[in-house]
Amino acid sequence: MEETRVYLSQKEMPRAWYNIQPDLPKPLPPPLNPGTGQPIGPEALAPIFPMGLIEQEVSQQRWINIPEEVLSIYGLWRPTPLCRAKRLEEALKTPARIYYKNESVSPAGSHKPNTAVPQAYYNKKEGVKRLTTETGAGQWGSALSFGCNLFGMECQVYMVKVSFHQKPYRRMLMETWGGKVTPSPSSQTEAGRNILAQDPDSPGSLGIAISEAVEDAAKREDTKYSLGSVLNHVLLHQTIVGLETKAQLQKIGVKPDILIGCVGGGSNFAGFCFPFFPEKAAGKAIRFIAVEPTACPTLTKGLYRYDFGDTAQTTPLLKMHTLGHNFIPPGIHAGGLRYHGAAPLLCLLAEEKLMEAVAYPQNPCFEAALLFARTEGIVPAPETSHAIRAAIDEAVRCRKNKEEKVIVFNFSGHGHFDMASYDAFLSGKLVDYEYPEEKIKESLKDLPAIGAK
Amino acid sequence: MEETRVYLSQKEMPRAWYNIQPDLPKPLPPPLNPGTGQPIGPEALAPIFPMGLIEQEVSQQRWINIPEEVLSIYGLWRPTPLCRAKRLEEALKTPARIYYKNESVSPAGSHKPNTAVPQAYYNKKEGVKRLTTETGAGQWGSALSFGCNLFGMECQVYMVKVSFHQKPYRRMLMETWGGKVTPSPSSQTEAGRNILAQDPDSPGSLGIAISEAVEDAAKREDTKYSLGSVLNHVLLHQTIVGLETKAQLQKIGVKPDILIGCVGGGSNFAGFCFPFFPEKAAGKAIRFIAVEPTACPTLTKGLYRYDFGDTAQTTPLLKMHTLGHNFIPPGIHAGGLRYHGAAPLLCLLAEEKLMEAVAYPQNPCFEAALLFARTEGIVPAPETSHAIRAAIDEAVRCRKNKEEKVIVFNFSGHGHFDMASYDAFLSGKLVDYEYPEEKIKESLKDLPAIGAK
Repeated sequence: MEETRVYLSQKEMPRAWYNIQPDLPKPLPPPLNPGTGQPIGPEALAPIFPMGLIEQEVSQQRWINIPEEVLSIYGLWRPTPLCRAKRLEEALKTPARIYYKNESVSPAGSHKPNTAVPQAYYNKKEGVKRLTTETGAGQWGSALSFGCNLFGMECQVYMVKVSFHQKPYRRMLMETWGGKVTPSPSSQTEAGRNILAQDPDSPGSLGIAISEAVEDAAKREDTKYSLGSVLNHVLLHQTIVGLETKAQLQKIGVKPDILIGCVGGGSNFAGFCFPFFPEKAAGKAIRFIAVEPTACPTLTKGLYRYDFGDTAQTTPLLKMHTLGHNFIPPGIHAGGLRYHGAAPLLCLLAEEKLMEAVAYPQNPCFEAALLFARTEGIVPAPETSHAIRAAIDEAVRCRKNKEEKVIVFNFSGHGHFDMASYDAFLSGKLVDYEYPEEKIKESLKDLPAIGAK
Repeated sequence: MEETRVYLSQKEMPRAWYNIQPDLPKPLPPPLNPGTGQPIGPEALAPIFPMGLIEQEVSQQRWINIPEEVLSIYGLWRPTPLCRAKRLEEALKTPARIYYKNESVSPAGSHKPNTAVPQAYYNKKEGVKRLTTETGAGQWGSALSFGCNLFGMECQVYMVKVSFHQKPYRRMLMETWGGKVTPSPSSQTEAGRNILAQDPDSPGSLGIAISEAVEDAAKREDTKYSLGSVLNHVLLHQTIVGLETKAQLQKIGVKPDILIGCVGGGSNFAGFCFPFFPEKAAGKAIRFIAVEPTACPTLTKGLYRYDFGDTAQTTPLLKMHTLGHNFIPPGIHAGGLRYHGAAPLLCLLAEEKLMEAVAYPQNPCFEAALLFARTEGIVPAPETSHAIRAAIDEAVRCRKNKEEKVIVFNFSGHGHFDMASYDAFLSGKLVDYEYPEEKIKESLKDLPAIGAK
């Protein structure tokens, strides 16, 4: 019997996160103060983030040690298995080998606890009692509820309203770990009240929810804010995924040709791919493919420009691919991919053509997810289905070209809390949104003038 | 960093199931024909089961080889990890060591695929095109849908009506794997129509759903029936759980003092404990503790008598602890534990005092589940919460008695599809049913005279 899973022991778990910043082809454009257009210093972030994380945000150190307390909690589910999708390969009749890194085995069911736990830890260490955050599909909110609970902290989650109603079980999961969940836009914050005044039926968006969570944190002394993606320190924590994958591939003597991940804010993709970047930069032929929904085509249709991270324009400006901070994507089931921007670190690589990006509508993604569930067993999250779609398409290309490539994708999460989306798919009710170019152009008109060429 | 998980490689996976029959202290009373009171032969079971499974049902061979095709599918998630619940131990301040065998990592989220896969395999081998079954909480129905899908067979699931409405995501999961799900009692069968005529609002029960599934299978040439628990061959397949656990404990040089599992029909408990039986029979002090709900107290309050396996009296008579085949337990959230009887193999051990049984109401079980989720991370299934409650109580006893015992329980499944029950628990809406003695006495009046002393 051939082994289809590669395990690492807890002793073999990486002891440091990989920071890509010193290895970038050019320096990362700094976040700017929207008023002055000048780079912001750490003090500007201090009201909403602890110093431990602000330091990581700007660090130029290649390796950053993972604290023992974090390692011990990682040990509840890490190292996660790397699996060969043999039955999927057979179904596709592909000569390619398909592997997936199974991040769905975490208690919250996704890669998100990889950063939720250290974020809770660094906040706790500096005396913070309460964290606020936003969540789309609920993956991040449940991860932070889980993380806060382990350090005895309160967790207030603003959940995008459309997902709040689509995914009641996610709310219950957060509450099981002690989280407090409010549908966003809410009347709890000024940002929320403003949106509701304009559109009482607003489905919400990650941008709006971020505004609410940031406002809440800025208002209270005992509270800080926590972001589940986009920022450098979040991507840093997620590199545990790629570092383990690298060790696992080495263990079986396999070299990857293509690495694939879905992109919302970009953290699972970056955490998965970045540890392979030094080899790629040194000339090794590894393709990084980011997969996003056509309903929110940030990397494939957005502009690389300075923009706000949130709708209410309360964050610093970040240099990234953006559809405009007023962009509100339709309520697709992959709620975690509904973000108007993406991680600046990732966008720099995209701009430098060191990675590729593709976009898919939701029906072909669910088709891919169904094939995966019916061959490999696990039911994928709608977000993850995007990575699977791209992996399958690459594998089919290998069949046509008779190429024995090694395709590795990040199985970012399971779909146990997203079954209603499978129900909708199976009954033919899913709409494929191709976002109209003119609508994108319209929301791009609102980009701040600062940093525009 | 101390390892908290014990893995086996796929190569180390057991190659044969353990059959307890030759090691029993006395022969198992045979199933009887309800009309004649005589033992039934294989030919009586042939209309609803394939010969491969009927042979296993009566086999006296101690070891039965696991077919390669089954091993290969087991490899999608097996061997499952054995985990040390360090954080739970710390929360309980117990000197005891608590381990759990994590069966929740299977695609269906429980131990059920361990038998669904071989059952589909043996049916397929004999040309069967379609399987019918019943399901309570939906764990079994989803496992059989998963198993049938892998062998290209149809799967018709009769789902206990109260669970069908409580757990829509479970239905969607079955459908994702291609299963067809009907709430039971249904108008699809005579058995269902009879119940509906008496009580159109019947919440259903496993007993009724079994009647429907058996009738459906008996009616169609291409169809056989599949049972998720109770029968000898089902318990046999589940011994993979205990065999792995044994190998894992040996690997770390740990000897178990107490083995704990929840009991509905008894298959997860038996599969977990039976492989340790030869040592126990040889005089080693290992306690087996079965945990059931007070709402359906089969082992703790039932009689050890011949009874029907289903409500419509269509099955052979089985010698088991029973609350009477007309017993319909209240709609507790642990739907998988709502069965009036239990596995004859298990009941024989109980009658011979080779195992213990305890019963808990649902609130203390959910308290235990919450503590587990908040220390170890994973959210347990309501069924599994019963095993956790008992494990915690034993660990607390160890604290009081200053005993460093090794407690191992079977974490039979996760609660991702049962979040509504956590919602009900957290909002104080769960009722603790202690089934009234007089009601039990009443349903016991309906026991068949055959085999009564």
